[in-house]
Amino acid sequence: MPYDFKIQRRVEFSETDMAGIVHYSNFFKYMETAEHAFYRALGYSVVMKDVDPPLGWPRVHAECDYFKPLRFEDLVEVHMLVKEKKSKALTYVFRFYRLNSDREEVARGSLTVVCVAHVEGAMRAVEMPKELAEKIEVASVEALG
Amino acid sequence: MPYDFKIQRRVEFSETDMAGIVHYSNFFKYMETAEHAFYRALGYSVVMKDVDPPLGWPRVHAECDYFKPLRFEDLVEVHMLVKEKKSKALTYVFRFYRLNSDREEVARGSLTVVCVAHVEGAMRAVEMPKELAEKIEVASVEALG
Amino acid sequence: MPYDFKIQRRVEFSETDMAGIVHYSNFFKYMETAEHAFYRALGYSVVMKDVDPPLGWPRVHAECDYFKPLRFEDLVEVHMLVKEKKSKALTYVFRFYRLNSDREEVARGSLTVVCVAHVEGAMRAVEMPKELAEKIEVASVEALG
Amino acid sequence: MPYDFKIQRRVEFSETDMAGIVHYSNFFKYMETAEHAFYRALGYSVVMKDVDPPLGWPRVHAECDYFKPLRFEDLVEVHMLVKEKKSKALTYVFRFYRLNSDREEVARGSLTVVCVAHVEGAMRAVEMPKELAEKIEVASVEALG
Repeated sequence: MPYDFKIQRRVEFSETDMAGIVHYSNFFKYMETAEHAFYRALGYSVVMKDVDPPLGWPRVHAECDYFKPLRFEDLVEVHMLVKEKKSKALTYVFRFYRLNSDREEVARGSLTVVCVAHVEGAMRAVEMPKELAEKIEVASVEALG
Repeated sequence: MPYDFKIQRRVEFSETDMAGIVHYSNFFKYMETAEHAFYRALGYSVVMKDVDPPLGWPRVHAECDYFKPLRFEDLVEVHMLVKEKKSKALTYVFRFYRLNSDREEVARGSLTVVCVAHVEGAMRAVEMPKELAEKIEVASVEALG
Repeated sequence: MPYDFKIQRRVEFSETDMAGIVHYSNFFKYMETAEHAFYRALGYSVVMKDVDPPLGWPRVHAECDYFKPLRFEDLVEVHMLVKEKKSKALTYVFRFYRLNSDREEVARGSLTVVCVAHVEGAMRAVEMPKELAEKIEVASVEALG
Repeated sequence: MPYDFKIQRRVEFSETDMAGIVHYSNFFKYMETAEHAFYRALGYSVVMKDVDPPLGWPRVHAECDYFKPLRFEDLVEVHMLVKEKKSKALTYVFRFYRLNSDREEVARGSLTVVCVAHVEGAMRAVEMPKELAEKIEVASVEALG
């Protein structure tokens, strides 16, 4: 799978706050939108409820650096790269670009997620399915910047 | 149970939008906050997962009329009254008051919810528990205004 | 302008709640997404800050009837029709269809918005721009259903 | 000002996702709720629009580590400490505790915010008001853990 995956979305009115810019918590929703589209592109859903036991990917770390604000109706391109792949965990890097007259990086974020099995109401970290792991390509040091 | 139940909450920054006022969709979250506090006051949780089968209360109708805007840090009082009680459904009325220098009604809303049992992944409307129904008092015509 | 305007969007994880379905307040965000795309299709932004005085469209009424739940990754088509056009106000109707194996109407909503001018921090209802009004076509009784 | 400021809030239904737990983006809203209550406790609003020029506090960095999930109706205590105070920027640390039968730390986060003046539609980093700066006490190394 190409290691640089990207989606576009347009900033919605409800995502802005009284400062006239996208509320900072929404960048974490944008990251997830990219991640879930990435899984679909691999032929999966991030919610793997049809395997036994059902698997999920809770977040253990999330962060974002904000360089420039995003505003209503801005078109945003979110790039997702896999920075680290362990047997039970993945770390992604996200770059946010505003695509207006020019193309400008507005934020950069990161998520670390763990593969868990839901067994009898509890969650337990497990190795991710081998078939999935083989499809996930770690980005090069150059690409990660 | 007194038929006029109320809660207070302070408008949060993330609830505002670029117009500088609370986004209209958040009034529906405020309604739910009042409803769930109402259930707790009756000794229940709106998520009745410890009964067999587990019960829930999906919404079948929601509406709101907006008179005045709410702004960041406004203190809001949400009044909840039960307008109609059927064996399988409830209709609530909500009045929103801003408690700043004066007390002003800023919005009025309504929700209709249905009691459903979750059986084998599907939802089926069922009669609400008798013990709960007995605790829910319909508001008078005068109180409903 | 064709009176039946539509957009598609995919349900996001953050839009679901612990009942496993889209939280009912999000249908009001979906309505707005369709409305704002409608304005863009007419060559406008719903935030008309470059006219003097700046215009906005606060909501005075919102409602929704829910027939079926929406779930994570469902593809949703939102149809928007103009039900009523007054000099200072518009009423839209929205129909939500889930586009999975079949095409099923899952909800129907309505919004009434008022054209306001922002003058010295206050909002005052004003007639909408004539050029915009001429582009907005009211749907036929048959289309409104 | 005591360097360990805290608020409590109860998890709302709309803050949960289909995994049955609080969506990770909401921890960033909880941080902000604590921050804004902290400013009110100091006699300020985080939105300083009555000074000339108006001041705001955009976020330049946000992060969170998640240890345990939060669920609907959990009572959460958010502790806020000031980790670093510069002339134009502040870094806060947040600790999240679930107050159910026991008291358990469920997450730990951090925000860095910059004081900006809004001048002619643009934002420029400025020194925070001296009167405010004097009221903000940096936490001890021991308290920060």
